Amino acid sequence: MHPDILTSLATKTDSKIVLLVMDGVGGLPINGKTEIEAANTPNLDRLVEENVCGLTDSIARGITAGSGPGHLGLFGYDPTEYEIGRGVLEALGVGLEMTPLDVAARGNFATRDATSIIDRRAGRIPTEINRELCAKITEAIPEIDGVKVIVHSGMEHRFVVLFRGEGLDGRIADADPQQVGLPPKLAEALTPEAEHTVEIVNTFVRKVEEVLKDEHPANTVLLRGFAKYPDIPSMEERFLLTPAAIATYPMYRGLAKLVGMTLLDTGKTVADEMETLKNHWDAYDFFFIHVKKTDSYGEDGAFEKKVAVIEEVDKALPDLLSLAPDVLVITADHSTPSLLKSHSWHPNPFLLVNKYIRPDEVTRFSERAFVHGGLGRFPAKDGIALMLAHALKLKKFGA
Amino acid sequence: MHPDILTSLATKTDSKIVLLVMDGVGGLPINGKTEIEAANTPNLDRLVEENVCGLTDSIARGITAGSGPGHLGLFGYDPTEYEIGRGVLEALGVGLEMTPLDVAARGNFATRDATSIIDRRAGRIPTEINRELCAKITEAIPEIDGVKVIVHSGMEHRFVVLFRGEGLDGRIADADPQQVGLPPKLAEALTPEAEHTVEIVNTFVRKVEEVLKDEHPANTVLLRGFAKYPDIPSMEERFLLTPAAIATYPMYRGLAKLVGMTLLDTGKTVADEMETLKNHWDAYDFFFIHVKKTDSYGEDGAFEKKVAVIEEVDKALPDLLSLAPDVLVITADHSTPSLLKSHSWHPNPFLLVNKYIRPDEVTRFSERAFVHGGLGRFPAKDGIALMLAHALKLKKFGA
Repeated sequence: MHPDILTSLATKTDSKIVLLVMDGVGGLPINGKTEIEAANTPNLDRLVEENVCGLTDSIARGITAGSGPGHLGLFGYDPTEYEIGRGVLEALGVGLEMTPLDVAARGNFATRDATSIIDRRAGRIPTEINRELCAKITEAIPEIDGVKVIVHSGMEHRFVVLFRGEGLDGRIADADPQQVGLPPKLAEALTPEAEHTVEIVNTFVRKVEEVLKDEHPANTVLLRGFAKYPDIPSMEERFLLTPAAIATYPMYRGLAKLVGMTLLDTGKTVADEMETLKNHWDAYDFFFIHVKKTDSYGEDGAFEKKVAVIEEVDKALPDLLSLAPDVLVITADHSTPSLLKSHSWHPNPFLLVNKYIRPDEVTRFSERAFVHGGLGRFPAKDGIALMLAHALKLKKFGA
Repeated sequence: MHPDILTSLATKTDSKIVLLVMDGVGGLPINGKTEIEAANTPNLDRLVEENVCGLTDSIARGITAGSGPGHLGLFGYDPTEYEIGRGVLEALGVGLEMTPLDVAARGNFATRDATSIIDRRAGRIPTEINRELCAKITEAIPEIDGVKVIVHSGMEHRFVVLFRGEGLDGRIADADPQQVGLPPKLAEALTPEAEHTVEIVNTFVRKVEEVLKDEHPANTVLLRGFAKYPDIPSMEERFLLTPAAIATYPMYRGLAKLVGMTLLDTGKTVADEMETLKNHWDAYDFFFIHVKKTDSYGEDGAFEKKVAVIEEVDKALPDLLSLAPDVLVITADHSTPSLLKSHSWHPNPFLLVNKYIRPDEVTRFSERAFVHGGLGRFPAKDGIALMLAHALKLKKFGA
């Protein structure tokens, strides 16, 4: 179905939708149980018993979603239609505010000799040195030919650079030879429209080398993952929603901002997030709540810690339910099994809490129980239609 | 899959398909049971036990289908590809015979003063007055510039008008200011191709005001929902079927005619419809039988009456089965839960009775049991391929 159809059916009402994302919550069994199955979740289990569930594919069967596409799908956008480049994701991740004018790239401080790159990470310089170097560059190169340059330090040798100006284009091949022993490589335009941007970028690299000429080991930079800030219609335009995001990590706040959500200030725990929800309940009709640590501990292979985060969410649920949202969806952007210590392609549990559902026979918050859920299995991007429908925010299609 | 593929595989045989549509039969639980679950349906249950079932989405998850798109899907047409405009549906609903030349619109008798519309419904004039006014208009305005004008009264202030002539275009904005206190608004072309039609339409409105100038309160008309009769390939062209429709309500007869079905005269009860089926059994290879009252009582919120209609269908089944159709499908165009008193987005039960099926483990005619059906969950428009296949009316794809 073309997404414009959903837009044409959307209608503004007072009903409220909460999308609670337990990042990477789906897992794989260790000793017979997934993290979800090992967790003690009386509140979730009760919701499952009384409501309806299913499984979603973040992109499609077998495809592992990154955080960007995983969240775009949850927000109702086809992640294969709207791509978020690596540079943009990195910029959002360090908390940089981006504008539609911006082209972002990931940077490495690196070491070169007269002819070649000899260390692509400049010996992993301390973050403190990184910050000093970024400050120096910022002072020396505030802009190039009217294009504003914004440099933001990351951990160790990593940084992010934004180029902000009219008519920039992100279709640019990396300024990075990818391996040591090769000569430095300048950026290259992948399309004629990007030639002007490439000139700016390569001027930047040359100027940086001047600034760093007396530094060691960080005497040059590599830039990769060039990407323009994507032009994505907002959730307000697309679904007539007034959405707000409750998330602690910069990348997820950035992803929410990409689709036009208002970012609410919040604390670090799930309980803090629920408090934030309560405080802003009247002002919005769609709330995205992001729980990060299920994913972080999955990535660490920390099974028991991931279980504990699931239990923390379970304990916070009564607070959320006391607000009586018209629609509550509890799901994930992708799976992150502790067994794999990485994102995975396994489908996500999707629990829909609402009064207009046909209850199914599932009684337990569990990936394998959800196989039998009444909603079946579907692409994550279709979840928004279910949320809108059950909130009575969609008109009939045709007469 | 492109619909042409199905056409290329279709083959003419003697086998017979019956598509029994219980309009809006799917529901939501009240006191723990849906209407289907509350009904005593021994015949349906036996069929479910011995055959195979699943669930269909009329359009897509979360999307509520109107009657037009709901039926187009059942007939094997993508409802997002072939749209039936509001005016056309209304014309079919009052039983007007349309031709491919026709543009239809819904009309209201209304009240105006010298400058503004002051009542959009002319005080809801009695239907009897409406009929008199329509007769007057018909007599006074039989045609405009060679375009035939056909006016048909509806209930209270409502009527339908058809404009029949070469080269008409339905892409026209309403001749209706939408609220009282505003000046009358003439129709406007949404595309240059519709300018000629708009002249005819606005001439009609002016002439009607002349005819009605001494009437009160109905002294003008508002027209909206302009739509051209859609150009849809027939089921004969598309699937090599010779289809007939057994339906009592004009709108559904009109929808069947849109895809080239022969309309059979029938009585008002389900038993009458079965009798009609028996009488025409030899002449067609595809029968669409429409049961309206499941939907009507759903719209009324009349749970028990909807239950009774389901039981009435159940009782009529042995008559149908005595004809030994090669394929019998029992399904719906959309759900109409009594709880919502309206169409809804919840999926439809789909029961397939045939000798070449793999029986599943479902034993009860019930929405939540059908979640576990052997056919899984699929878009309603794909049902035609299942019907054709099980009737051995489809060749192999490729060698």
